[in-house]
Amino acid sequence: MRKILIALIVGLSLMASIALAGTKNTGPAPNGMIIPEDWKDWRLISVAQRNDKNSLRAILGNNIAIDAARAGKTNPWPEGTIIAKIFWKQKTSELYKDATVPAELVHVDFIQKDSQKYASTGGWGWVRRFGLEQKDYDKPNFGLDCMGCHPKEQDYVFTRPPQLP
Amino acid sequence: MRKILIALIVGLSLMASIALAGTKNTGPAPNGMIIPEDWKDWRLISVAQRNDKNSLRAILGNNIAIDAARAGKTNPWPEGTIIAKIFWKQKTSELYKDATVPAELVHVDFIQKDSQKYASTGGWGWVRRFGLEQKDYDKPNFGLDCMGCHPKEQDYVFTRPPQLP
Repeated sequence: MRKILIALIVGLSLMASIALAGTKNTGPAPNGMIIPEDWKDWRLISVAQRNDKNSLRAILGNNIAIDAARAGKTNPWPEGTIIAKIFWKQKTSELYKDATVPAELVHVDFIQKDSQKYASTGGWGWVRRFGLEQKDYDKPNFGLDCMGCHPKEQDYVFTRPPQLP
Repeated sequence: MRKILIALIVGLSLMASIALAGTKNTGPAPNGMIIPEDWKDWRLISVAQRNDKNSLRAILGNNIAIDAARAGKTNPWPEGTIIAKIFWKQKTSELYKDATVPAELVHVDFIQKDSQKYASTGGWGWVRRFGLEQKDYDKPNFGLDCMGCHPKEQDYVFTRPPQLP
């Protein structure tokens, strides 16, 4: 009886692990950052394309970010800003040969402005989550690498919100 | 006294005309379509790039469109769908030579699914508004031109919503 019970518990634990492995990661990131679960519903800030990475990007922002973008007050971005940048591989459209469209999702990057908490990484928390399961980047404190390329003179953010009507 | 009054009225009318010319167009389109004023706040469906037009695009949708996109039920798109496609000229980023980013806004296209009202143009109303002032395209019933290129086998919509986590 005891063996059956142990086997049952082990079996159920395994099933739970497998289920969790297929579940999108919405927990805290390694740097402690909490990403609101509704980030996919955020409004658009901009789009971009990168030839060296063969990718198309969409840049979304939380309400603080959108208010700042629309008011043209993004250098620096205000405290509490969160920006999500979605990266897809790009491919030629099957419907139009001169168009480039998203292929598979590669990763989503999130940056959150908290000058005190993230003082050591330019006042921004940096998070990168891979694939549909949003697996966290396993390099500790990779934000320091981001800062090596992101433009300090523009508050470490590449995106300049474009014109909207 | 009468001449002064006439001059005043003419002057005020001129000022009002100038002010209106600088106001973003949010009224009904030539085909009668009403575009909700908050369309800029809609959620993202996809992004795209076109080499032949040297442009970057963002595709947003109203709630009906987003629900359909996320459920993978977009062929046909449901009645009431409105999709907004924002077109910017593209340029090389000043901050990263391999990146392409939006330049000036060219136009915004809107399509609304109403199979009865727009039966003669594939079940979609077609609207194109130019520039920051959103000036309506002055070609009558240009939707017929759109249909000549948009894929009928995909409900006349090029966009295939990409993966999101």
